[in-house]
This record gives sequence, C-alpha cells and structure tokens, in this order.
Amino acid sequence: MFLPLLFTIFLLSSSSSAHASALDFCVADPSLPDGPAGYSCKKPAKVTVDDFVYHGLGIPGNTSNLIKAAVTVAFAPTFPGVNGLGISIARLDLAVDGVVPLHTHPGGSEILYVLEGTICAGFISSSANTVYFKTLYKGDVMVFPQGLLHFQFNSGKTLAVAIVSFSSPTPGLQITDFALFANNLPSEIVEKVTFLDDAQVKKLKGVLGGTG
Amino acid sequence: MFLPLLFTIFLLSSSSSAHASALDFCVADPSLPDGPAGYSCKKPAKVTVDDFVYHGLGIPGNTSNLIKAAVTVAFAPTFPGVNGLGISIARLDLAVDGVVPLHTHPGGSEILYVLEGTICAGFISSSANTVYFKTLYKGDVMVFPQGLLHFQFNSGKTLAVAIVSFSSPTPGLQITDFALFANNLPSEIVEKVTFLDDAQVKKLKGVLGGTG
Amino acid sequence: MFLPLLFTIFLLSSSSSAHASALDFCVADPSLPDGPAGYSCKKPAKVTVDDFVYHGLGIPGNTSNLIKAAVTVAFAPTFPGVNGLGISIARLDLAVDGVVPLHTHPGGSEILYVLEGTICAGFISSSANTVYFKTLYKGDVMVFPQGLLHFQFNSGKTLAVAIVSFSSPTPGLQITDFALFANNLPSEIVEKVTFLDDAQVKKLKGVLGGTG
Amino acid sequence: MFLPLLFTIFLLSSSSSAHASALDFCVADPSLPDGPAGYSCKKPAKVTVDDFVYHGLGIPGNTSNLIKAAVTVAFAPTFPGVNGLGISIARLDLAVDGVVPLHTHPGGSEILYVLEGTICAGFISSSANTVYFKTLYKGDVMVFPQGLLHFQFNSGKTLAVAIVSFSSPTPGLQITDFALFANNLPSEIVEKVTFLDDAQVKKLKGVLGGTG
Amino acid sequence: MFLPLLFTIFLLSSSSSAHASALDFCVADPSLPDGPAGYSCKKPAKVTVDDFVYHGLGIPGNTSNLIKAAVTVAFAPTFPGVNGLGISIARLDLAVDGVVPLHTHPGGSEILYVLEGTICAGFISSSANTVYFKTLYKGDVMVFPQGLLHFQFNSGKTLAVAIVSFSSPTPGLQITDFALFANNLPSEIVEKVTFLDDAQVKKLKGVLGGTG
Amino acid sequence: MFLPLLFTIFLLSSSSSAHASALDFCVADPSLPDGPAGYSCKKPAKVTVDDFVYHGLGIPGNTSNLIKAAVTVAFAPTFPGVNGLGISIARLDLAVDGVVPLHTHPGGSEILYVLEGTICAGFISSSANTVYFKTLYKGDVMVFPQGLLHFQFNSGKTLAVAIVSFSSPTPGLQITDFALFANNLPSEIVEKVTFLDDAQVKKLKGVLGGTG
Repeated sequence: MFLPLLFTIFLLSSSSSAHASALDFCVADPSLPDGPAGYSCKKPAKVTVDDFVYHGLGIPGNTSNLIKAAVTVAFAPTFPGVNGLGISIARLDLAVDGVVPLHTHPGGSEILYVLEGTICAGFISSSANTVYFKTLYKGDVMVFPQGLLHFQFNSGKTLAVAIVSFSSPTPGLQITDFALFANNLPSEIVEKVTFLDDAQVKKLKGVLGGTG
Repeated sequence: MFLPLLFTIFLLSSSSSAHASALDFCVADPSLPDGPAGYSCKKPAKVTVDDFVYHGLGIPGNTSNLIKAAVTVAFAPTFPGVNGLGISIARLDLAVDGVVPLHTHPGGSEILYVLEGTICAGFISSSANTVYFKTLYKGDVMVFPQGLLHFQFNSGKTLAVAIVSFSSPTPGLQITDFALFANNLPSEIVEKVTFLDDAQVKKLKGVLGGTG
Repeated sequence: MFLPLLFTIFLLSSSSSAHASALDFCVADPSLPDGPAGYSCKKPAKVTVDDFVYHGLGIPGNTSNLIKAAVTVAFAPTFPGVNGLGISIARLDLAVDGVVPLHTHPGGSEILYVLEGTICAGFISSSANTVYFKTLYKGDVMVFPQGLLHFQFNSGKTLAVAIVSFSSPTPGLQITDFALFANNLPSEIVEKVTFLDDAQVKKLKGVLGGTG
Repeated sequence: MFLPLLFTIFLLSSSSSAHASALDFCVADPSLPDGPAGYSCKKPAKVTVDDFVYHGLGIPGNTSNLIKAAVTVAFAPTFPGVNGLGISIARLDLAVDGVVPLHTHPGGSEILYVLEGTICAGFISSSANTVYFKTLYKGDVMVFPQGLLHFQFNSGKTLAVAIVSFSSPTPGLQITDFALFANNLPSEIVEKVTFLDDAQVKKLKGVLGGTG
Repeated sequence: MFLPLLFTIFLLSSSSSAHASALDFCVADPSLPDGPAGYSCKKPAKVTVDDFVYHGLGIPGNTSNLIKAAVTVAFAPTFPGVNGLGISIARLDLAVDGVVPLHTHPGGSEILYVLEGTICAGFISSSANTVYFKTLYKGDVMVFPQGLLHFQFNSGKTLAVAIVSFSSPTPGLQITDFALFANNLPSEIVEKVTFLDDAQVKKLKGVLGGTG
Repeated sequence: MFLPLLFTIFLLSSSSSAHASALDFCVADPSLPDGPAGYSCKKPAKVTVDDFVYHGLGIPGNTSNLIKAAVTVAFAPTFPGVNGLGISIARLDLAVDGVVPLHTHPGGSEILYVLEGTICAGFISSSANTVYFKTLYKGDVMVFPQGLLHFQFNSGKTLAVAIVSFSSPTPGLQITDFALFANNLPSEIVEKVTFLDDAQVKKLKGVLGGTG
C-alpha cells in the first residue's frame, strides 16, 4: 500500500503549518514571563490533556466564614489550559444567609447558572445607577456585564450552589469591602471618597483586618 | 436637607456621562440590523432584568433521537442580554449511549462542567493532529480551544448532563456530519473532499436527510 | 496640461477604495441604532470638522455641590468624532476639599494630567487589595488601569483641575456611592452586600436621594 | 426509515443555535447603517455564493495614467462577503516605470505576492526612520506592517503585476501626494507642515488638481 | 549649515518616542517564549528587510501524493515578519484531480485568488448547514469565513494554482480526515462521533497512517 | 474578635483568584522579551505607585530647533504603567511659528487638549482626500482618527502648549519628512515615489541629515 507514503510527502511539504498552528492554544507556563495578553505558552510537546481539565470544582467550598460563602476559581494560571482562550470558570457555594458581597470583575463579563437552591443576584448599571436584580432558582441563568458592580446572596432556606463562567481567563475579582477595608488605605481617605462615617469605617477595618 | 439638590447639580454637570454609559451593555434587539460585532442594542429605557435572565436551561432536553443527546442553547439573540458581552451558555443532555458528534464552534472557545454522570470528551489539535481526550466525572471541567474539532459522549451507564459556556455570545455550532450529509452538497463532492466511499456517503445522507 | 486628466483615470480605476475608506472614522449618529462596537456612522458627506472638535472643556465645571467637584465629559455621542476610535476625554474640577468619590470606568483605562493645584489620587488592585496612591502636582500624570476602583481628591489649598483621557469613547463612570445609595436598591440588600450598618445606609440614601 | 425524523427533533431542540450562528459571516448591506465594526449584515436568507466571490481582479487595470499604475481593489462593501472578516484583496498593475506612490493603509497590514515582473518595494519604520526595501521577483512575498509609509514601483523592463491582501476588509489607502496636493488644503499650510518650497507645492497641486 | 543640529535637538527631546515605536512591528524570534498574541519580538537592531520577505511561494509544491495537491505556507514563525500583523499567505497547487480535503482554519478567515486553472471551492455555514460553492477561474477571488469547513479541488483539466491569504499570522489548518484518521484516536470513538462504519474508519486509518 | 480569622479562611479558599488577577495591570519590564501585545510584565511584588506616575510632562520641551516645537512623550516603556492599557500621553510645545510637521501615529488615535495659545490642527481622510482643519483655542479639544495624516502648528502670537493622549501605550510617531529625508533612502527612490523634484529632495535631505 503506497498511500501513506504519499500523504507523508504532502505533510512534509506543508510542514511549516505545523509550526504555525502551535498557537491552536497557549497553555500557561507561569515560570516564564507574562504579558498583556496572558502567560507565556508551555512547549506544545509538554502539553497533556490534564492541562485542559480541572478537578477542583466538584468539591463544595468551605462556607464556615463570616460571609457564609466560598468562591472556588479555575482561572489561569491555576487552570493553565484557559490561558489565551477568553474563558474561565468558578464555583460559588452560599450557605444559608451566605453572600458574595458587592464586587466587580475588571477583566470580563460573568454568566451564572444555579445548580441548587435560591439566589438573589443583581447588578447596577453606570447609566443612571439603575439596578437589575432577580431571584433565581435551580436551572436559571443570569449574565453580569463587564466591569459593573454586582452581588449574589442566598435568598432561600437551603444551601445554594452556582457555576459561574467568565469571558476572560483572568477576570479578576474586586470585592468593594475588601478594597476599602482590608488594606492600609488610611481611614480618612476611605471616609473622604465614600462619605462613610468614621465609626463605620473603623468597624469594618476591624472586621476585615485593615489598618490605618 | 439641601444635599440632594447639590448632588443633582453634580449629576447634571456630568449628564453626558449618562449617555455615554448607555454602552454598559447592549441588549440585542433582533428587529434592528445586526453587524459584525453583534446585534443592535435595545433602547436602555426598555431594558429590564429579564433581558439578562434565561430560564430554559433547567429543563432537560429531549434525547429521544438518533444521537440520544440534546443541546439547549442560550445564545444571542434568544438570550438578548449576552449580546456584545463575549459569553454565552448551553445545556447538554446525554442519555445512555448519547453523543454530541464531532463539531466545532467557529466563533469561540468552550468550557464544560459535568453536572451529572460520566462524559468522555476530547479535542484534536491542528498541529500534528494530536488528540486530547479524557473521561470526566461529576464536577470536572474541560476547556476546548476555539475552532478545534471536539466531541463529547456519555461513557457511563446513567444520564449525563453538562453546562457549557462559550467565549462568544454567538459561538456557532458546526457538526461535521450535518455539514456533510444534511444538505444538498453533491455526493461526488463529499466523496472527493473526504475520501469516504460512495456507499458510506449515501447511507449517511439517507440518515441525515441530505440530497444530491 | 494633461496630467490631471490622467490622474482622474487612476482615481476612477481605484474608486471602490473611496467607498472602503469610509471607515477611516465613524462619526456617531445617535439617531440610528447603536451596537456593541458603538454608534452607527453619520454619512461621510455630512461630516464636518466640527464633529471632531469639542469646545466644552475649557469652561470650569460647577463645583457648588456636596462633593465640591465637577466632571465634564466629552464622550460619544456628545462628542461624535470619538465614536469607534478608542479614546475620549474629560475635565475634572476639584474645589478646595473637593473629591471624586470611589468609582470605576467599566469600559476603559484612564490617564490624568494635573493642570492646576494638588490632587491625591489612587487605585486599588484586585490582587491582594493593594492600594497605589500618590500626591500629584501640576504637570504630573497618573494612569488608572481598566475597571479598578480609584479616586481623586484635592489635597491642596487651591482649586485643582485635571484633564483625563480614557481608552474608550464610552468608558462609563460608576461611582460606588451612587450605585449603592442613589437608586431604589432596598436597604436590606445594600446592607447584606456591603456589611454597612442600617443607619449608615439610610443616612447616605437620604443624602443621595435613594429610596427603599 | 425513522432516523431523519429523530434528527429533526434534535435539530428543533437546538433551534436557537441556528439563529445564533447567523453570525458565521456578515455580508455587507450598504443600504443599512454602518458602524465602527463595519457594515450591517444582509439577511442570511438573501446571501448567495456570489456575495463571497469577486470577479474583477483577473482584468488588468488601466495604467495609461501619470503614474503608469492601477490599483483595483476588492474591499467591503464592493466585495460584500469580506465585511467583518478581517481580510480583503487587491490587484496592482505597474507598467514599465509605473509606481504606487508613497502611501499608508490606516486600517491594516498588507502582504504582496508578485505575479509577474520585478517590483522594488519598501517601507519606513517610525522608529529611527529605518528604511526596509528590496527588489522582488515573480513568486516573492513582502509584508508591510500596519500604518507605515510604503511604496512599490516597477524596477524591471516589463509589466509587473502583484496581488495584495490586507488584514482588514476596509484597509483604506492614503497616498501622501494626494493627501497634500489633490485637495483644497491651502499651499501655505502644506508648505508649513512639509517644508516643501512654494514652487514645488504649486507645481504638484497643478498636476494633481489641488486648489488653494 | 546649522539646521541638522537643531533637528537633532528636536529628535533627542522626543527620544522616548523612538523606544515606544519599537512596536511598529514584532518580527518573531522563536527562540524566546511565545504567548497568546504570538511570538516574542526580535530585537529591532537585528531586524533586516529579509525578515519581511519570503521566497518560497514562487516554487510549485510537490503534488505527487494521494491528494495530488500541495499547500506551501508562509506563516509565523517561518515567515517571521508577519508575527503580530494579522496576516499571512500560502500557495496552493492542485494537479489534475487534486483536492484540498475538507478543513478549517481555527484562527482566521481565508481569501483565495486563482492564478491558473479552474478550482471548485466551497464552504458550509453552521447555520442550517447551507453550502456555498462555486467554480472559480483564473483571476477569480473567493473568501472563506473564519472557522467554517471548506474545500477546494481542481475541476479543470490542467494544473490549478492559487494564492491564499489569511487574517492571522498563524491561522492553523485542520484537515478533518487527518484529525480523524491520522492519529491514535481509537476507531470506536471515531465511529461513535462520526457515525461512520467500522470498515470505512479502518480503511481510512490505513490510508492515513492512523492507529487504534 | 473572630471575624478576621473567618475572612482569612474565605480568602484562602479563593486564593487562585489572587494569582489570576495579577493581570489587573502589566507594568512593562523592558529587560524581558516583548511581544505583539506589548512588553512583559514586571513581577507584581516589585510594582510601586511610581510605575503609574510620570513627572516629565510638566516641564516645557526645548523648542530651540528648526521646527520650533517639542514633543515630550510618556509612552511604554518609558512610562511602564501604561503597558497593555490602551492609553498614553504626551506634551506638545509650539513656540511662535512652531509646527509639528505632517505625521501619522501608526498604532492609535490621538486626542488633543489646548492648554495655552492658539493651534491650527487638521487631518486628511483617505477617502477623497478631504481635509478637516480648525483653529483651536485654550480649552478646545480635537480628535485625530488612527493612522491618518495630520498636523498642528502655532497659529497665534504666543507660545502654544497642548496635552495629547493616544489610544495605545505605543502609538508610534511617523513624521513624513523624517521618513523621506532623514535616512539613507536613495534620492531617486524618494523622487519616484513622491514626484518631488530632485533639487527639493536634496535640499531637504541636507536639512534633515539624510544621505543617498
């Protein structure tokens, strides 16, 4: 049978294509420099299917904390296969009374699918500060546009779980309270830029471990 | 109390900001022309929270068909809130022996989360035709890079369900078999460009309703 | 002289180029539908130089308000020439003790140039909530990365003025306080997602005109 | 045979996919508004294969003009199928002594393939004004990075022909001489911004039909 | 003459511009790490005009193979000057009865120009599986939208040659038959995801060198 | 007080988020390789607020040169904080009779704000070579679309100063005269591609230090 040989010839004559298509994907290698578009790529020869598979999201997060919530993320570089692909995923566990406080994702939009329980979720537009919020039940989906303040909390009487995806491998997560109260931004500046009372600011700095 | 008045003045002096930020989101209005970046935007005043919420994915798809599978999608414009946001979502139901045949999404990458059951999923790189496939269990995640051929099938003994998200509001879905056998592309062309035997092509055209 | 005639022939033979290059720019026509990439384009024949020129930023904004500040913006569509160009501009006036409260621009990065006075400006990263802030003097520049919480306030004893540019014709402006307190988001939800005390929330709702 | 029926059920259950994938392509409909991302899309039902095929480039352009050259372009919307696809094409005919004068394409990079003859082509970087130029023969390829000044002229003794492609459906074409001398930009401004002598400017305005 | 000196002063005062515009282009240096946006850049001082010129496409490809076709590509990094520029090029030789089998380019759209002979070319949309195909003659152009299955074959009685350009420096090339039959994807999986008969799969695996 | 501890638990459970959001910004580290999307990122731990602040634009540029103008730029990597952010800034000083000669920015659009004096500014479209120019006074803004030829000159009787921002951290600056006359591009090629007279070309090469 001479056909395989002939195909080999064809393949050789287009061999530079093989090099070019090294960019089918770019599995993150965090040991190399990163740039504005993401992490450098692992050498294709070292890539395995396990770079594209993530196991951590089947396990409930630990909600034994103040907010009774856990966000378990599969972003680059922890999940190296998503690097450069414009997508990532996370799991959200909300115990009864659990809440994901007001936050933004600076780098991407979010889509949420309710796996279990009842979640009240909403976002606020920057135009006229309109609020869009809704109680979501198992199987419901809600989308949160890029960069806008949003929140989710358990509005039912049982555990709530959701799967959330993002339009970026590194969407970021900026929780407003943590940004204000969990660092060393001086209280007087916090008060100046939020109009919050001094007592309120100091109380929350105390809770969240902030100083200044 | 005079403060609200003063804020109103502030708001008026920055009133063009409100117009500008009309582009926080662009809920699809399919009655208007669409363009390369997506659908035209619904007037902000007519947007409601229901534009950002989708209810259809909680319902199992009907798998009483040849492939014993159903893909239920929430893409723009059916789910108008995702228009322009770089994300969308779908539900995959795979009965025992169900399969999502070999396919691509021309417009985006995919991330899959297994809700129930056992799924064997894989993709093929264009470089050297390397295959990456894996058996996935409840809670596992797999990512499929943009434009590459991939597949999913139930490799367990119970119903399997997955939630899949895409890095585009309109990722498209091109099932190779449907592209080849479910239309009027003449059999002789199909055979020429696939090296399939005439009998094989005619058999599958018969199954899939193709002519020519 | 026969040369002009010959050039005319050349121009005719490449006449479709003229149509194509209609997309040199896309001056916003807000009377037509907008889409995810911006406003529809005004017909080139109706475009004049005044579409690319904006006069409003030479005039000090009115800072006789609670925050003693004014932001005067030249975004699309108020400044139609920037539509589609990835840039826009605004003027910031800060009276003594004036402040631009904590805010984000969901759609772009910002660069600030101090025209007069002394401004303390800062932003907070989403990674580890690190704060980057600095006192800026006349002629200093500071850049604020896309989507991150930031603020500016007058830290001197005279009026401060800045020119700020954005990497988007419609960057948006989401002031955290307005998002929380200037709308009808119920107080109990505000409290749940911010951990603020009820009295604090009601006080600020009162100031900013919020209800619920 | 019951299989086609079952497939139909499958197809119906995923019917919103069909809507979504309307954005496989966006054939230009210039009768509708255009936007920053390109022309509005023709309704898919009216699209035919002829929207994706262009016949005009097989015909030599008329080089009986001053520059002894012709550029025949297939850009959107003249070639409606390329709208939104990031690519377009043109044909370049250079009679003996023919020249495509110094120019830029504001919207894209260019790649040139020599079909016949000998062409001297070059571009100038903005960094240090380095010139990169080379004599190209039949079968040679040269790439011109986006936005940089470049030129091509026949450096042989026979007709030269090239096919050029662009990384945009509407790359634009700005010939420096035409920008300076083929319009009503006052001579004194032309001289001020180019340092050209008054006689030189007036001579070229005469040749190219400029006024002022 | 003192003018050159004065210009030098001007140039020095804007010297950081020179550094900045190092990004006029980014010639690939494959010895450095690559990332999602492409290869790292060669130091500008080492760049020569030959990085932007490619000589290989003037030579007919070897069509003495099963498919009687050859695709000779000039993609990054083989053609380092196209890195980062959104464009690349290839040559297609089709002997009589030659065929480029059904394939996609995951990373870009394609535009084809017929240099010689007669080519039947087509693509299949993901929406409703509509086929768009046409016989193309010398000088005809056809565009193939990103990510869609397409094919080309010689439909004349003489050699056919085409030049094809892509909207990416690394468009990739995924030939469906090679993806299915030229690797170690187990036959039972191939059959499951394609509905092809076992004999057909084994026959083509034999021809294309696949195992399993 | 046990709350901080509980929050710490929450923070640990989402610790991969912290890694992911390393891409909030990408401060340029020019000692590492650069790529098509910009410079590699400095390690976040080494980033300080001074990476985001630039002091050089408060100082008037030296206009004691032929063009009586100075452009002082804050582009990446000189201003490392803008890397990857889609924005940069510069200062323009125009003494009486000063001029920024005809030029383009290959990589971005520009927006200009007049700080002092009177500036005549304009750009030329590639479609029909239409000129858009206007005299601008203190406080006026003008936008120049990407890649189009434009100019600015002092049209008043006092010093003029402007702040200009760009939609790219590395917009580039290609002054047409420098591209033609300040390098070793042979005079005969300059003349061929511009139609300028030999004497004119040699005069300007003399002024600008060109050879050949």
